[in-house]
Amino acid sequence: MDAESLKPFFSPKGVAVVGASQDPTKLGYGLSRNLVQSNFQGVVHFVNPRGGGLLGRLMYPSILETPDPVDLAILLIPAKSIPQALRECGKRGIQAVIIAAGGFREIGPEGADLENKCLSIAQSYGMRLMGPNSVGLLDTHLPMDATFLPPPGPLPGDVAFISHSGAICAAVVDWARGQSFGLSRLVSLGNQADVSETDVLRPVAADPFTRVLTLYLEGVSDGRRFVSEASQITRLKPIIALKVGRFTSGQRAVASHTGALAGQENAFNAAFRRAGVIRAETSEEVFDWARTLAWTAPPEGRGVAVLTNAGGPGVTAADALESYGLYLSRLSKSTQKELSAILPPAASINNPVDMLASASPEQYAQCLKIILNDPEVHSVMVILPPPPMYTAGAVAKTLIPVIHHSDKPVIIALMGERLIQEAVEHFRAARVPEYRFPERAASALAVLAKRAEYLRRAEQPPITFNEIDKEKAKILLEESMTSKSGGFISQEVAEQLLGIYGISTPITHLARSAEEATRLARQIGFPVALKIASPNVPHKSDVNGVLLGIDDETGVAKGFNHILENVRTNVPKVEIRGVYVQQMAPDGQDVIVGAVQDDQFGPLIMFGSGGIEVEGLKDIAFALAPITAEETEYLLEATWGGRKLGGFRNLKPADCLAVQQAIQRLAQLASDFPEIAEIEINPLRVMGEGQGVLALDVRARINHK
Amino acid sequence: MDAESLKPFFSPKGVAVVGASQDPTKLGYGLSRNLVQSNFQGVVHFVNPRGGGLLGRLMYPSILETPDPVDLAILLIPAKSIPQALRECGKRGIQAVIIAAGGFREIGPEGADLENKCLSIAQSYGMRLMGPNSVGLLDTHLPMDATFLPPPGPLPGDVAFISHSGAICAAVVDWARGQSFGLSRLVSLGNQADVSETDVLRPVAADPFTRVLTLYLEGVSDGRRFVSEASQITRLKPIIALKVGRFTSGQRAVASHTGALAGQENAFNAAFRRAGVIRAETSEEVFDWARTLAWTAPPEGRGVAVLTNAGGPGVTAADALESYGLYLSRLSKSTQKELSAILPPAASINNPVDMLASASPEQYAQCLKIILNDPEVHSVMVILPPPPMYTAGAVAKTLIPVIHHSDKPVIIALMGERLIQEAVEHFRAARVPEYRFPERAASALAVLAKRAEYLRRAEQPPITFNEIDKEKAKILLEESMTSKSGGFISQEVAEQLLGIYGISTPITHLARSAEEATRLARQIGFPVALKIASPNVPHKSDVNGVLLGIDDETGVAKGFNHILENVRTNVPKVEIRGVYVQQMAPDGQDVIVGAVQDDQFGPLIMFGSGGIEVEGLKDIAFALAPITAEETEYLLEATWGGRKLGGFRNLKPADCLAVQQAIQRLAQLASDFPEIAEIEINPLRVMGEGQGVLALDVRARINHK
Repeated sequence: MDAESLKPFFSPKGVAVVGASQDPTKLGYGLSRNLVQSNFQGVVHFVNPRGGGLLGRLMYPSILETPDPVDLAILLIPAKSIPQALRECGKRGIQAVIIAAGGFREIGPEGADLENKCLSIAQSYGMRLMGPNSVGLLDTHLPMDATFLPPPGPLPGDVAFISHSGAICAAVVDWARGQSFGLSRLVSLGNQADVSETDVLRPVAADPFTRVLTLYLEGVSDGRRFVSEASQITRLKPIIALKVGRFTSGQRAVASHTGALAGQENAFNAAFRRAGVIRAETSEEVFDWARTLAWTAPPEGRGVAVLTNAGGPGVTAADALESYGLYLSRLSKSTQKELSAILPPAASINNPVDMLASASPEQYAQCLKIILNDPEVHSVMVILPPPPMYTAGAVAKTLIPVIHHSDKPVIIALMGERLIQEAVEHFRAARVPEYRFPERAASALAVLAKRAEYLRRAEQPPITFNEIDKEKAKILLEESMTSKSGGFISQEVAEQLLGIYGISTPITHLARSAEEATRLARQIGFPVALKIASPNVPHKSDVNGVLLGIDDETGVAKGFNHILENVRTNVPKVEIRGVYVQQMAPDGQDVIVGAVQDDQFGPLIMFGSGGIEVEGLKDIAFALAPITAEETEYLLEATWGGRKLGGFRNLKPADCLAVQQAIQRLAQLASDFPEIAEIEINPLRVMGEGQGVLALDVRARINHK
Repeated sequence: MDAESLKPFFSPKGVAVVGASQDPTKLGYGLSRNLVQSNFQGVVHFVNPRGGGLLGRLMYPSILETPDPVDLAILLIPAKSIPQALRECGKRGIQAVIIAAGGFREIGPEGADLENKCLSIAQSYGMRLMGPNSVGLLDTHLPMDATFLPPPGPLPGDVAFISHSGAICAAVVDWARGQSFGLSRLVSLGNQADVSETDVLRPVAADPFTRVLTLYLEGVSDGRRFVSEASQITRLKPIIALKVGRFTSGQRAVASHTGALAGQENAFNAAFRRAGVIRAETSEEVFDWARTLAWTAPPEGRGVAVLTNAGGPGVTAADALESYGLYLSRLSKSTQKELSAILPPAASINNPVDMLASASPEQYAQCLKIILNDPEVHSVMVILPPPPMYTAGAVAKTLIPVIHHSDKPVIIALMGERLIQEAVEHFRAARVPEYRFPERAASALAVLAKRAEYLRRAEQPPITFNEIDKEKAKILLEESMTSKSGGFISQEVAEQLLGIYGISTPITHLARSAEEATRLARQIGFPVALKIASPNVPHKSDVNGVLLGIDDETGVAKGFNHILENVRTNVPKVEIRGVYVQQMAPDGQDVIVGAVQDDQFGPLIMFGSGGIEVEGLKDIAFALAPITAEETEYLLEATWGGRKLGGFRNLKPADCLAVQQAIQRLAQLASDFPEIAEIEINPLRVMGEGQGVLALDVRARINHK
């Protein structure tokens, strides 16, 4: 799986096109033509059993007959012929193969068998496979266009596009060309029989021309490996992902809120957050954001100045900036003074700075220069509707040197279409991001600010507590797994697990008689709770096996007998070990903390509101387990249940530190034992500051293997 | 203010351009040229004191000398010359004037004075004014281009654009032309010294060519009139509004949650909802939605079928549809059978229907026809990336007749740019909405579904309860307003007001002695609460003037004396009338119901979660008061506090009907008495089904005039 083995895909010395065709309607023609016309400097061989010539070259009847060097083969032949061709590639010593054909896993079991067969052949020769169902790959700087997409290919640029969908590649290349927007590399992964999105991240990121990686994902092949690879890249180059299939949540057996609410989406969000991957919600956002991330430096903060020649678009921009979590910088007195010196009296020298419709190209440039010098301004949006007195192109020309001279990002809202074409061309050539409407410019500025914050945030290792006796927990779990109770371990065992991981539960002792219960209650301190102790009763209150808030000894003695009576009446056959005498928890705020094993990303930790809000409001947030300190804080900030722990109006602040530790400890438990399919503390009672937390109830389900 | 008086703006017999100019850099040239080149069929006169000729016409030295007919004058002269010109227009008998110049209200008090002067001159002659700061207006069908926007003007179309910002007009006209997207009318309102956005709604909607009205609003001049005018139009033609200035919330004195949370935005949302106005969040949405609303019929439901030739865009579309609240229709067995008869075996005949990359124009058309026949399908999104084997144009040509033959809306996601240009042109000519990405197509389909639901919803009058003795409330309020307590009326008066309006408060009696208190408590039934009765104590618990949950007669007697003692110690000088003995409210859910007077829209009613959630989660919704039955239901559905009244998990259902009535009754109170600046019931205790509600606390503030 080493990146070295993928080298022939990205910088082949020689390429053999198997299934090259003279018929212009065939993909075998299209790819051959693209390869030649893209001005690829390596060797190109065409292979077709019928021989003949193509684009001035002879066609070889077999791959075996192609002369050196050939390290990459592209197969444009039908599915059924692929295995034989792969064997020949192997014999020929080719190291990398792209399969364009469909007719594999996507058509059902038969196709999947064929795909597996192809993979084993490739593996037996040590060859790497891209596809099947790949439209190919291209590099505009090498250059090499090894796709069968209709020409022309994309312009050279600095954004790489990696896609699970071939049709999206076709659309993106065509759309980008229409937008005069360049790409550096494009990789169509198809079925990913071998090479996956994660595999290509590193080689694509290594390309010096690529400044931003964009991904169209339908899933990931190995969640944790994706996170690990992406994390290393995002420190250097941004990755933007459009993850589709949001509402096709996987089927899984769930028995807790955590399980029910941990959809694929929450897992992806947690993983992207950890890896620093920026998630786009729409296709347009991907490329809107990519341009700004590729062309501008990250700003030092969220303060934005808006420079406009009209009030309306300025207000629209201000609205959009605020809605994206940015704010309008307060301009200093000296900035305002400088602005008023060159603007008419009716102009607005507050932010948004409105120069009025008469603004000349020089005024645009001078004002921008003044604004960029204000330390409160971290980035600037310049608004340019078709100016009534001048051309937008003239404004662009005077603005560009000012923009290039500053370290702060400047983005243009260039409103209109025909009257601004010249300006569009100037800005694109100068790599200054421009958008048709202020709203989209604001969205790009917001992503830029987030990227800057990510880069400023130091990398943090996940938190682990070393004093935890993992071995003890392991033995406990192994013992519990020999017994059978529908996958659930008993609450007693679950509480012991929490105890080993340092999460407090209420003091509980087992009483076998009313006298013993009374003595234990005295020892614990009143009030106490009584609960039936039976391995066969998962829902104690359903059988009237619980009494809360007992204030005195008489109550305990009576309660002990009462509970035994209730349970014997309601479920006569269960084993009764006695009655638990339990400390009553002090008042506090209730939250929920859970963990679940995700198919793609392994252990996830969840935090949210206690009570019915967790489901009713979906007031929850997820992170990968084990969890970092920053992620723990995020869980609290992202939820109302977490925010109000800090106190709100007449609600007193609760012990946030203890909650954070409980989250981190439960995450460590889930990460240590992947066999715990779900574990949930609901509620976790959070007492006042310095008073700690108590896990009042815990349920855990084990995956018997 | 009658619509008739605006007629000369929209169908003038003769137009005089005052300040027409031979200098091509002047607006007076631009407007003259546009007017002539737009092929306006009425009479056009140019006025310039220097005389001479322009565009083949003689210029008149004065407006007074222009021959009949002239009913509209457009003034392109500096601000200071406007009053004199207006007088001349008045003398000449002109009925409508557009002022293009700036230099009025927007530059400060001096400009405002000038603007007011202009308005009085106009009024003295019975003339209507548009502007100042108007870029003019145009009608592509009349035709008439009376704007000074740079040419070319917009293509003829069916969408009208009414704007408070002139710069946005320039950008929209240019952008629309670039998108081959037509407009019917454009009206630039400028400062609205006289004619406002509300005034022009009716004449613009009356235009038979206009199918959709779009508004760029920075506010409204008269909120209730806007709602009333818009409501009548939206039953026939959709109105889409982009309301900007979202974050410039007005300053107002607030003393309740309702007051603090009722920003301009909530008022606008409530007003738009009542009026059936569709609110767009971005400029692009306005025109994305307008096209679909203008060109397609409203669907019968939210079920959408997606027809695609590739999996990736299909998944993207499915995601987007679900995120907009639409759903993928389940195709019937017979539909699937018909599809499988014409598609290859590997195609997907589930929704999204994936015909595979080989799909021919005929297959596109046949499949669309089959899908449209399925009764479960209410609308269709056809996805068309550049097809590998055919041209997108050929697909468009075969699809269009099928689309035109069906009553169901069909929208195209035409992905790419250059390879799809021919298809774009075919679809635009055929008035079939197409979007570059599935996400934007989904957004348009969602708006279409909402519009259909609005049209299906019967018009409802606001609810008023006739048995309410408004006169009694009026006397009560007048009495309380003579006293002074910082604008607040006493809780006692507020409770009496609620009583008159049929909202229950806990049974309360005034006791003047401990014996009387004991007797009253027995009568009310235990437990009871005791509260100090004093006109000078607004916050009773701050002075220890409240005791809750008293269970027996001894407690009441002791409590009575205890409270008197507390209050006498804490605030020795206040008048004490006795102690209230009050019914303790049964358990239930707590919500908040309030009303506030909005500057623009008058009385608004608010509903939301009780407790700290109202502020912490902003779990609130607003409607105009008085309120309709449908709006009342919306308030409950739109908030978590409302939804959980219906019961949730272990939370029992509460008396939703009683809550709705309380909302409606408080709305009627707020509507009856605009002098009530704010009134808030917090909490309103909601008991179980059929058990009613109790206003446990109420505060009201009066606007002394």
